[in-house]
Amino acid sequence: MVKHFIIAIDLGGTNLKCALLDSALKIKAKSCFSTKSFNNKQKLIGGIIDSINSFILKLNLTKNSILGVGIGLPGPVDTAKGVVHFLPNIPGWKEVGLKNILEKIIKLPVFIDNDAKLMALAEHKSGSAKGYSNVLCLTLGTGVGGGLIIGNSLYRGRDNAAGEVGHIPLNERGPVCGCGSEACLEVYVGNARIIEDARKLFGSKITLEEVSRLAQGDNIKAMKFWDEVGGKIGLALSGIVNLLNLDAIVIGGGISSAGNALFKSVKYTILARAMSVQAKRVRIFKAKLANNAGIIGAGYLVRERLIR
Amino acid sequence: MVKHFIIAIDLGGTNLKCALLDSALKIKAKSCFSTKSFNNKQKLIGGIIDSINSFILKLNLTKNSILGVGIGLPGPVDTAKGVVHFLPNIPGWKEVGLKNILEKIIKLPVFIDNDAKLMALAEHKSGSAKGYSNVLCLTLGTGVGGGLIIGNSLYRGRDNAAGEVGHIPLNERGPVCGCGSEACLEVYVGNARIIEDARKLFGSKITLEEVSRLAQGDNIKAMKFWDEVGGKIGLALSGIVNLLNLDAIVIGGGISSAGNALFKSVKYTILARAMSVQAKRVRIFKAKLANNAGIIGAGYLVRERLIR
Repeated sequence: MVKHFIIAIDLGGTNLKCALLDSALKIKAKSCFSTKSFNNKQKLIGGIIDSINSFILKLNLTKNSILGVGIGLPGPVDTAKGVVHFLPNIPGWKEVGLKNILEKIIKLPVFIDNDAKLMALAEHKSGSAKGYSNVLCLTLGTGVGGGLIIGNSLYRGRDNAAGEVGHIPLNERGPVCGCGSEACLEVYVGNARIIEDARKLFGSKITLEEVSRLAQGDNIKAMKFWDEVGGKIGLALSGIVNLLNLDAIVIGGGISSAGNALFKSVKYTILARAMSVQAKRVRIFKAKLANNAGIIGAGYLVRERLIR
Repeated sequence: MVKHFIIAIDLGGTNLKCALLDSALKIKAKSCFSTKSFNNKQKLIGGIIDSINSFILKLNLTKNSILGVGIGLPGPVDTAKGVVHFLPNIPGWKEVGLKNILEKIIKLPVFIDNDAKLMALAEHKSGSAKGYSNVLCLTLGTGVGGGLIIGNSLYRGRDNAAGEVGHIPLNERGPVCGCGSEACLEVYVGNARIIEDARKLFGSKITLEEVSRLAQGDNIKAMKFWDEVGGKIGLALSGIVNLLNLDAIVIGGGISSAGNALFKSVKYTILARAMSVQAKRVRIFKAKLANNAGIIGAGYLVRERLIR
């Protein structure tokens, strides 16, 4: 039998998403659990193993039909050695040799990588950035992450640590950031900060989804709110655009659904602050694969490693 | 006779440097003119042609022995088409098809590129960055320019406009920059600004060379001066280091000779402001080829285009 299925896992701070992909990386089956229901590292690894096994059992697959397992994780990863350095939003993970642990138990090849990198891979291969050579994919959420495509390949840097757009300084001095520095993009536009700002403007019960809906309904205060967030994102992107003369930028993650007000402000700021050649070149897109980008990216990761 | 000489030209705002390179890119002869002595575009092009011809005559070369001519220019260049878009510090140049103009007259293959990119190429091939895969070369002068080596090759971006480190914003708001934006690195550490700051501190007749000498002699005020300049450069580099997980950064140009105080401050700021993995990885070097980097880079440009 031809090996053609891939099991793809997207481990986030909120959800553990698991999917069975066919050879075209189409999703054939999907499962989702709350990450918090596994309250320590052992249980979470157990949850990953159970997810994989339950696909195999339920769908009556043989291990021979499965090419491998790809996993995206929300933190810095040594993808070559298969080691998770740490996960900022999931406690208890420090230098975990996840690839080896899983391969011993499930007897399938396992590949792991940072989730923002896998999202970039997916958006470049089959999403908004398809056909563009040099691309930044930005994910907006609790953290602000990113992945770079340079010359049509995922650019990792020596330590697989490239792409940290969230930690570009916006000012010489500013609010302290979780990374140890200050005034990083993430402290201005990470969810924690903008929900706080939103509550000051719209009351303590507002959610970011509601502020997005308000802006889509032309509420001036809400439009101004996203305009300011977009201005900060656009400023950080202006520096990157000047440095890399990018073809495209893809913006995904929760607040990218804020819609027009946010995207208009990002585009306007890049035109105002970046150099004209670079600003005119770069296209700004919303991520296309949305919640599935991590899963699809994990599929491409397995394919890239096993099929050359 | 084997073609093995290359004529390399480095056109700066101050000097027109011209050199004859052998097949190992060693400098066999050199000439230098003041750029300002050619007071319009036609005369400057005439000066370039005369420089080339005088080498050929004086050294009794045949055109058959010359592989080609490489030229570095201080501004944005379409290297594929051989067109100079404009030169910020030399008036009268706008969309000049320099490659075609010269090739018609001198009957030799001509290749042109931006000078900061050629410096990066030279420092990577035979200078401080030799052996490092992902490198930023920064040139500090009237303007603040840069060239990026990614995966051991010069990274140009789609419009050959990548590398504009001088136009990374350091603050959301700040002094107006020549590029049309504000608060760019260049407005804080370009020669115009720092000479003004130096004069406030050391009197109206001080030169930057003297402030460098004072710092080398442990003058506290001068050391603090370079410490602040280095802090601003280091902050911009921190963002780049987080984004690209670089192996090395090479710093060249006039004020890079300020020495220890400047380099210590750059290194300290990167350790303080960049993420730990990226900060620990990146090595900071002074440019090795100094005034010859542009010439050597122009030699590599010819070699890359003609010998694959």
